[in-house]
Amino acid sequence: MELWYTEKQTEQFGITAKIRETLVTEKTDFQDLAMIDTIEFGRMLVLDGMVMTTVKDEFVYHEMVAHPALYTHPNPKHVLVVGGGDGGVIREVLKHPEVEKAVLVEIDGKVIEYSKKYLPEIAGELDNPRVEVIVNDGYMHIHDHKNTYDVIMVDSTEPVGPAVELFSRGFYQGIFEALKDDGIFVAQTDNPWFKADLIQSVNRDVKEIFPIVRVYCANIPTYPSGLWTFTLGSKKHDPLQVDETKIPEIDTKYYSPRLHKAAFALPKFVEDLCK
Amino acid sequence: MELWYTEKQTEQFGITAKIRETLVTEKTDFQDLAMIDTIEFGRMLVLDGMVMTTVKDEFVYHEMVAHPALYTHPNPKHVLVVGGGDGGVIREVLKHPEVEKAVLVEIDGKVIEYSKKYLPEIAGELDNPRVEVIVNDGYMHIHDHKNTYDVIMVDSTEPVGPAVELFSRGFYQGIFEALKDDGIFVAQTDNPWFKADLIQSVNRDVKEIFPIVRVYCANIPTYPSGLWTFTLGSKKHDPLQVDETKIPEIDTKYYSPRLHKAAFALPKFVEDLCK
Repeated sequence: MELWYTEKQTEQFGITAKIRETLVTEKTDFQDLAMIDTIEFGRMLVLDGMVMTTVKDEFVYHEMVAHPALYTHPNPKHVLVVGGGDGGVIREVLKHPEVEKAVLVEIDGKVIEYSKKYLPEIAGELDNPRVEVIVNDGYMHIHDHKNTYDVIMVDSTEPVGPAVELFSRGFYQGIFEALKDDGIFVAQTDNPWFKADLIQSVNRDVKEIFPIVRVYCANIPTYPSGLWTFTLGSKKHDPLQVDETKIPEIDTKYYSPRLHKAAFALPKFVEDLCK
Repeated sequence: MELWYTEKQTEQFGITAKIRETLVTEKTDFQDLAMIDTIEFGRMLVLDGMVMTTVKDEFVYHEMVAHPALYTHPNPKHVLVVGGGDGGVIREVLKHPEVEKAVLVEIDGKVIEYSKKYLPEIAGELDNPRVEVIVNDGYMHIHDHKNTYDVIMVDSTEPVGPAVELFSRGFYQGIFEALKDDGIFVAQTDNPWFKADLIQSVNRDVKEIFPIVRVYCANIPTYPSGLWTFTLGSKKHDPLQVDETKIPEIDTKYYSPRLHKAAFALPKFVEDLCK
């Protein structure tokens, strides 16, 4: 018998992956959670029917959330990750020795629990002493912490279920206020092939709040279309003004100093969405 | 009743697309050919069970085969396209007014016939007077035309079926000899997630023949992993030495002057394959 996990990424298109076994399926207080062991991509975390991360390709997303912002800010000491309960972004953040404290605010404790159990290569740094893990609503945390963080990273699910409010103008305003005077934020903002409207509306909202707004892309095979966008808003520091020759070579598989600015060179149809 | 086209891109992973109808399925003299009308990506040409092109995302592949090489060569008058019977690369080549003649050598006349019939937005320029269409073996054509072309583009299927010899060292040597003294060639070279070995071996072979070898990437949603590589070999002109400010803004949806060099900035794991 062959078992395949098939995900409709749109109503008319999807991916399908042969699986060894299903490790977890559970309805948490916030969403449907599944942990599946696929042959091609290894273990895979699925929330509300959407792939969140897989052992084989997780490095792309986690590196590309963390490093462009952290190598743009000259001295990021206090970092907040909203969502990201699998711990992958935290692992990348800790590669920056100047980060004194990384706070993770994940709404769903079950994501943390099952990631620690089944995805140790991703979640392994959640117990690091430089990390504080808070199980709470990221929206609330942001509004309770004014002028606190150097960098804020929004590692949310898609704007359905618990993450709807994480794509609102009010949330971006809250982030602006939770950042210090030269703070930077970055959020995953879905793909330009099937969700062009979302990218446009986020871009418009963030531009009304932050003086510097940049969009960059990365290839993630298990995400819809394989092309993912990230929107960065900054109060002072521009990722395109960074001296790439001063970025150190760290232990990464996707991000590199040579890719730092190049990732912001967008396909023309994506560039047009962000005008 | 719902009909879905499912393609195994590896033994354990694939894509699935809901379809309106199957327009053609035929065993040609060279391969299995299908033309399918999908809802998400429009009409889709499938050869030997692999998506070759779709109406929705074809522009990425065709622009990215054609423009990086043509904006690197200072005066490309004579261009050869090997394969590419759907006509998409030819359409992009003709956007360069300095190209006097574009020769298409496609081994399978049925690909041309059905593309003209069902993909007119892609194949529409095959009857342009600047184009010569030859139904023949590209390998033979290359070896019969020494010192002839300014730019050669290899728009082949994967290295199975009729395209096996188009990934051989002998073929690249033939291309070198078919090019003029400052000629450039480019070939599609599959994806780095599932075909790392192929990219490495092509890179090694081409480096033994051409003094300048560069690899670049583009996102193609319907191709395996969504990330495609292209290998460029050049006798004299380096795509990374081009003055981007002198590249004109032409009618494209993916390629742009700003992307010309950035496309060559590779994810680190791809960069490592090409060392």
